[in-house]
Amino acid sequence: MCLPFQLVSLILQKPMMRIIPVVVCLLILCLEPANSQTTNTNIVEDFEPSSVNQPGKGYPQVNSEGRVRVRIEAPGANQVQLDIGGVKYDLVKDENGIWTGESAPQDAGFHYYQLNIDGASVPDPGTRYFYGAGRWGSGIEIPAKDQEIYALKNVPHGNVVEHIYFSDIIQAWRRCFIYTPAGYNRDIAKRYPVLYLQHGSFEDETGWSSQGKANLILDNLIAEGKAKPMIIVMENGYAFKPQENIDGSSRSRPEWVFEDVLIDEVIPMIDAEYRTIPDREHRAIAGLSMGANQTMRIIMNNLDKFSAYGGFSGTSNYPSSEEIDVDTFLDGKFKDGDRLNEQIEVFWLGLGTKEPDPFPGSVGAFRNMLEKQGIEYTYYESPDTAHEWLTWRRCLYQFAKLLFN
Amino acid sequence: MCLPFQLVSLILQKPMMRIIPVVVCLLILCLEPANSQTTNTNIVEDFEPSSVNQPGKGYPQVNSEGRVRVRIEAPGANQVQLDIGGVKYDLVKDENGIWTGESAPQDAGFHYYQLNIDGASVPDPGTRYFYGAGRWGSGIEIPAKDQEIYALKNVPHGNVVEHIYFSDIIQAWRRCFIYTPAGYNRDIAKRYPVLYLQHGSFEDETGWSSQGKANLILDNLIAEGKAKPMIIVMENGYAFKPQENIDGSSRSRPEWVFEDVLIDEVIPMIDAEYRTIPDREHRAIAGLSMGANQTMRIIMNNLDKFSAYGGFSGTSNYPSSEEIDVDTFLDGKFKDGDRLNEQIEVFWLGLGTKEPDPFPGSVGAFRNMLEKQGIEYTYYESPDTAHEWLTWRRCLYQFAKLLFN
Repeated sequence: MCLPFQLVSLILQKPMMRIIPVVVCLLILCLEPANSQTTNTNIVEDFEPSSVNQPGKGYPQVNSEGRVRVRIEAPGANQVQLDIGGVKYDLVKDENGIWTGESAPQDAGFHYYQLNIDGASVPDPGTRYFYGAGRWGSGIEIPAKDQEIYALKNVPHGNVVEHIYFSDIIQAWRRCFIYTPAGYNRDIAKRYPVLYLQHGSFEDETGWSSQGKANLILDNLIAEGKAKPMIIVMENGYAFKPQENIDGSSRSRPEWVFEDVLIDEVIPMIDAEYRTIPDREHRAIAGLSMGANQTMRIIMNNLDKFSAYGGFSGTSNYPSSEEIDVDTFLDGKFKDGDRLNEQIEVFWLGLGTKEPDPFPGSVGAFRNMLEKQGIEYTYYESPDTAHEWLTWRRCLYQFAKLLFN
Repeated sequence: MCLPFQLVSLILQKPMMRIIPVVVCLLILCLEPANSQTTNTNIVEDFEPSSVNQPGKGYPQVNSEGRVRVRIEAPGANQVQLDIGGVKYDLVKDENGIWTGESAPQDAGFHYYQLNIDGASVPDPGTRYFYGAGRWGSGIEIPAKDQEIYALKNVPHGNVVEHIYFSDIIQAWRRCFIYTPAGYNRDIAKRYPVLYLQHGSFEDETGWSSQGKANLILDNLIAEGKAKPMIIVMENGYAFKPQENIDGSSRSRPEWVFEDVLIDEVIPMIDAEYRTIPDREHRAIAGLSMGANQTMRIIMNNLDKFSAYGGFSGTSNYPSSEEIDVDTFLDGKFKDGDRLNEQIEVFWLGLGTKEPDPFPGSVGAFRNMLEKQGIEYTYYESPDTAHEWLTWRRCLYQFAKLLFN
């Protein structure tokens, strides 16, 4: 993408705003002028294939500085670029028509990226594909110092279930993914608490169990006895009422109904089909960015259903950094701090230290409100990460440890 | 790909042959001269977006003739081609730098394809991605007359479980997918028979529940009372012993151990973790192409474990069309026809009427052997399909109806 993912994020962050069709957004992205940089000469030559490459693919590669090197055969091309982190890097062609080039050092963690071949934005045929920035595209993994928390290790592993269902509310087929912890299939008498865990804008229900590595994070935490075994439900936050024809030509404005789908359809379905402990004490909800915003609204409207909340890089006052008026914010749901302290077992916020505006400001204003109201909460800062998946993997790792204790 | 998928298939069809590294194969494919065709002028203008496009993507499209129309913005490109079914079709650029073009009519069903931009073979950014032909790439769905058999319908749906495990035999992490039928999670006393179902060459464990639509085929059959509720296990047929260093420089030849992994690791794991009926009467095995070859060997070596076999577009005498010598073929396993008729409940073979050589010949030679030996079997021909997924979807549909009755 020509814009960094965090900026793409902003466009659709507020769940109640009108949906801008994806096509229009992508057009905006492509019209945006991007910096074009040629490659650096002082590059550490210790590149290795990315861990999320397709089987047998040698490129893309990553070096110890966090630079990404891509390579593609395109003998007839005039210009090939690597497009990552909002910057386009020119590749250089050799005598065999193979183009190679490197990015500047990237932050540790997972990043979406793409190639640009003579103006065509396409996935790199070397990587596996991930849904983010509104499309299935390439991803790369820059090794992090703390990657052990989401590594595939020799511990008992849970499963991830793809569950399709028809939503009467939105009159469409939908899909969610459900993590069941190790042992779920062996001891069929045991019941588990449930975390509902949401993706961000321009992402979908695949994000947390793919680039989010939620399953591996929980496998590792549970194996070390640092988190309780739990079920995780990962839904798609984009849920709209069917549009009605207002007259012969125009259609009604799409209306977000994710809260209705989750409360009235998904939770009853999960409680019927999985071995949950179906009460508020054993139900938590969390999300990242747009999902943090959505799930905060959902828990505050449904304190009879949930007892814990995690907001990763997002709050419902987004994008405002102004002081929150507790009388009007979310219909006054934060007015009675003492009562909230009794009702909510875990109120948790996390943010990367390198997040761009408006996240530090809006999360900061939200924290000020919590403190003014005397509402107990936990705040975590992810070192040296921006509005990206390493922040959210770390948030899940920290948050999950506190649940259902 | 420059070669049709069925030819790619041949390269690695025989499970015991030496592995040709994927890199080398892809190089061969790219060096292969392909026909280049310009688009036809008599095109029926009733194109609609393909059902396997990414959300919101208008292209690629398919018309009632089965032509594929692709479109991509590439203002700086010199040549853009659609590469499908072994033929490359030139696209035409408009004044805005957008390239558009169509293929000749394609057979109904699912096809892998790619774009070629100035010599770079890349996925079409409009489609979802599928693993086949040795890479994650674009796919397209040409509507079939009998598509109801694999349509997403308003019937009870099963789930697909992603199950990761460590194989001691190959000393690596592996993954399988497990279909559990509708109701599996609700009635936790009920136990089910199991079908082990394998992909073809250059495919993997994702194939059957993605482009194969095995879950939807079974959902529909079970809902209509045409098949027994069953679990389906979809494994990765590429399983090799760890290579040993023979001396300082060379490594041992890779040795296929899929049979060992399946029999000694996967089946015990499935029987321990899923509610199976763990006996031979309630265990079937089937596969397509390379998977048909592999699974025939496995059932004949393990008649104590399986009672039904399905070979979709493949048999273990592949690629030979010569008369089979029952004394030597698979160590004489087909010599005693009467005994096999007692042991095997369902012996099933299927083939598309448009399959290329050597499939008609090798399957034909195999059928001649069965008939000579007096071995009972069912033979199905898929009308107007080649060595592709519509053949295999239909095979599964027909085969599953006969299981566990």
